[in-house]
Amino acid sequence: MTSSEREARAALMRAADVGDTAMGRLVRHLGALGAVEAIRERTLPPAFIAQEARQERPCDLSGRLNAWFVRLAASKPAADLEAGAQAGARLIIPGDAEWPTQLDDLGPSRPLGLWLHGTADLRFACLKSVAVVGARAATQYGLHIAAGFGIGLSEAGWSVVSGGAYGVDGAAHKGALLADSPTVVVLACGVDVCYPSGHQDLFARARDQGVVISECPPGVHPTRARFLIRNRLIAALTRGTAVVEAALRSGALNTAGHALSLNRHLGAVPGPTTSALSAGCHKLLRERKAVCVTTPEEMIELVGVMGDDLAAQPRTPVVARDRLSESTKRVLDAIPNRGGAGPASIAVSAGVSMEITLSALGGLAAAGYIERTAGGWRLRKTTVSYLKAPESIALDPPPANEAPATDPPPPSEDDSLPPPHPQEFAATSGHMRTK
Amino acid sequence: MTSSEREARAALMRAADVGDTAMGRLVRHLGALGAVEAIRERTLPPAFIAQEARQERPCDLSGRLNAWFVRLAASKPAADLEAGAQAGARLIIPGDAEWPTQLDDLGPSRPLGLWLHGTADLRFACLKSVAVVGARAATQYGLHIAAGFGIGLSEAGWSVVSGGAYGVDGAAHKGALLADSPTVVVLACGVDVCYPSGHQDLFARARDQGVVISECPPGVHPTRARFLIRNRLIAALTRGTAVVEAALRSGALNTAGHALSLNRHLGAVPGPTTSALSAGCHKLLRERKAVCVTTPEEMIELVGVMGDDLAAQPRTPVVARDRLSESTKRVLDAIPNRGGAGPASIAVSAGVSMEITLSALGGLAAAGYIERTAGGWRLRKTTVSYLKAPESIALDPPPANEAPATDPPPPSEDDSLPPPHPQEFAATSGHMRTK
Repeated sequence: MTSSEREARAALMRAADVGDTAMGRLVRHLGALGAVEAIRERTLPPAFIAQEARQERPCDLSGRLNAWFVRLAASKPAADLEAGAQAGARLIIPGDAEWPTQLDDLGPSRPLGLWLHGTADLRFACLKSVAVVGARAATQYGLHIAAGFGIGLSEAGWSVVSGGAYGVDGAAHKGALLADSPTVVVLACGVDVCYPSGHQDLFARARDQGVVISECPPGVHPTRARFLIRNRLIAALTRGTAVVEAALRSGALNTAGHALSLNRHLGAVPGPTTSALSAGCHKLLRERKAVCVTTPEEMIELVGVMGDDLAAQPRTPVVARDRLSESTKRVLDAIPNRGGAGPASIAVSAGVSMEITLSALGGLAAAGYIERTAGGWRLRKTTVSYLKAPESIALDPPPANEAPATDPPPPSEDDSLPPPHPQEFAATSGHMRTK
Repeated sequence: MTSSEREARAALMRAADVGDTAMGRLVRHLGALGAVEAIRERTLPPAFIAQEARQERPCDLSGRLNAWFVRLAASKPAADLEAGAQAGARLIIPGDAEWPTQLDDLGPSRPLGLWLHGTADLRFACLKSVAVVGARAATQYGLHIAAGFGIGLSEAGWSVVSGGAYGVDGAAHKGALLADSPTVVVLACGVDVCYPSGHQDLFARARDQGVVISECPPGVHPTRARFLIRNRLIAALTRGTAVVEAALRSGALNTAGHALSLNRHLGAVPGPTTSALSAGCHKLLRERKAVCVTTPEEMIELVGVMGDDLAAQPRTPVVARDRLSESTKRVLDAIPNRGGAGPASIAVSAGVSMEITLSALGGLAAAGYIERTAGGWRLRKTTVSYLKAPESIALDPPPANEAPATDPPPPSEDDSLPPPHPQEFAATSGHMRTK
């Protein structure tokens, strides 16, 4: 009684468990209409049976066929399509314009069809999309990160794909919705079932602005197995998966595994090592399965077009001191914080010539780094904490044996030029004999 | 007037800046005694001058020689050695039994000698050692991690090598001291200089139990340049470096760079991405320069002997449900939480044969997972939260269209066996025609 490919697939989606690879291969073998007919007649093609026996882990095909038969007999595909249409949902199948062809990467576990409920075009929404997955029992840290990824990805023109759970999934969708992005919610139950029930408003907003999708027929409730098998869709629809917070045993790591086996990019967001909810992310990093991503921009760099979507390098702070020349820095480092030192002592300490020292002292004084006192040159108190690194603050004046006896008298307090440099240093500067 | 190799090196340590590679090459060329003589005579060998001119970034050799000359003239190596001995410090030089030969990896920037103050044998202490480095302005998180690494490494027989700064350095040493390990403090000033002054007690304990070392002569105070060049010693002495907390611009990243260029192992401890003090660690992870380490055991696995020092795999929690067979899990997943379902309905929903379903129902009931009520089989309320994953808790009963008309009457409340399974299912089970 199935009059069309679409009805045949709707019936097979009732007959087979989600992700049933034997069903996937049967449909590839016979087409959906042929598969329905074969199951109704309980007659599978010998070539298909032989092929299934050669699978790595062959299933009990006889039992499988019985299960398909019983469920197919109970299916009402025309009623499903009618009820879906009345509720505002649609069933898309391979070949439809809205079908995301990247699902072909799933091979025999490609879904037979997808129920969609929402305004966004699924194929278009997933063209540039990232999966953001993680713990249901997320910490405030995880929720903050997930929402930030949702916002950041969306603002950069990338859709978020995730499940419908509390925690990271919900926070990522909420972030994406805030940024007016067509977020994609992939459910492990029928698109008409609200699970968890507390996400009724979230799903409504996702339908208005994005799309809620499922490979389960209407009315089907989630089970553990459906959650796990659903995760392959999240991985397959997107260019890469970001794991935000995941315990060592978590569905998010299952999604990560799907992403890797589908050759999608995988990012993991680090967190405190003291948090069990980051242990799964750290495991992925430690095993070098995932790239460390700390911002949505870094995730976009990972999944984006090489060269086009580079994340800005995190900025290292630049301080005024960086702009000083190498020899001037050496002179500055040689100037005591307390007391004072004469130019010759500074020159010896810095290991640069007297000429360079005098020039550097003038420049450093003009720039406000140092000042002359009765005791000699010293760092200016007012700016020392900013101009010097914390490690070199509060240094004592150099000990006596670092101040040679030839040290000239300290400069006077007036603004006269420093005294001429010691004769012995100047006379030899630039003269070097070779053997 | 330098009468020995040791005195010559003590004098050259006064003459040259720490890490002066031109001095390193001169000593390799002429030996320490020959280098002292050449500098005193201001006469460098032509071959050495030619070699220096071929360096990638040739220095102003004439100016360098002048600086060496002036400082060498002011040096009092015999007095240095005498003062050191009186204070309890010793100068070790290459060739000494205590000299850590792994410093040879530094090439021309190998220190001319090392001043040591403490009871531990430096070479022995560094045989199995790890550098634990990080931010001075560490967070409570960083301090906690650093102390934990100090304790964990020490308890496993690994020494900690680090600087003497506040924050991560100090916390790592304190952890190591707690665990009675010979910790190694590498200073950027003379071993007789207490910088920072608040670490007087820490350094005293390190001298009692381990060793405080420096390539700076006694009395020398730290400068920014000395801190940076000191970091190469921390990297070179150890089998690997763990970066605990590091901002993007930090000395710890400098040490990490030294570790990489010396082909030492590099680990980075992740932290919250919201913490600027973990950004440096995340950068190392992101660029795949460092391995993600979350425990001292993981660091030991990184630096240890392959196969001998494996960290225990983080344990994933095992729940009772894991021990159920695949088909029993499917049956369990098909049993509603509220209301109830008959065996045939459960069999169809689970996609397994009636025979397997009945057997699984018996086992699951005996194990306390499920119970029979007037409405059929359902999950036991008391244990459901433990036995079922959070995702499959609180599922509604399956909708009407999932319960075929052939569903048998629900089992009665007494303990009789379930009613015989429907004829149509049993009759066809195991029968499959082929075309």
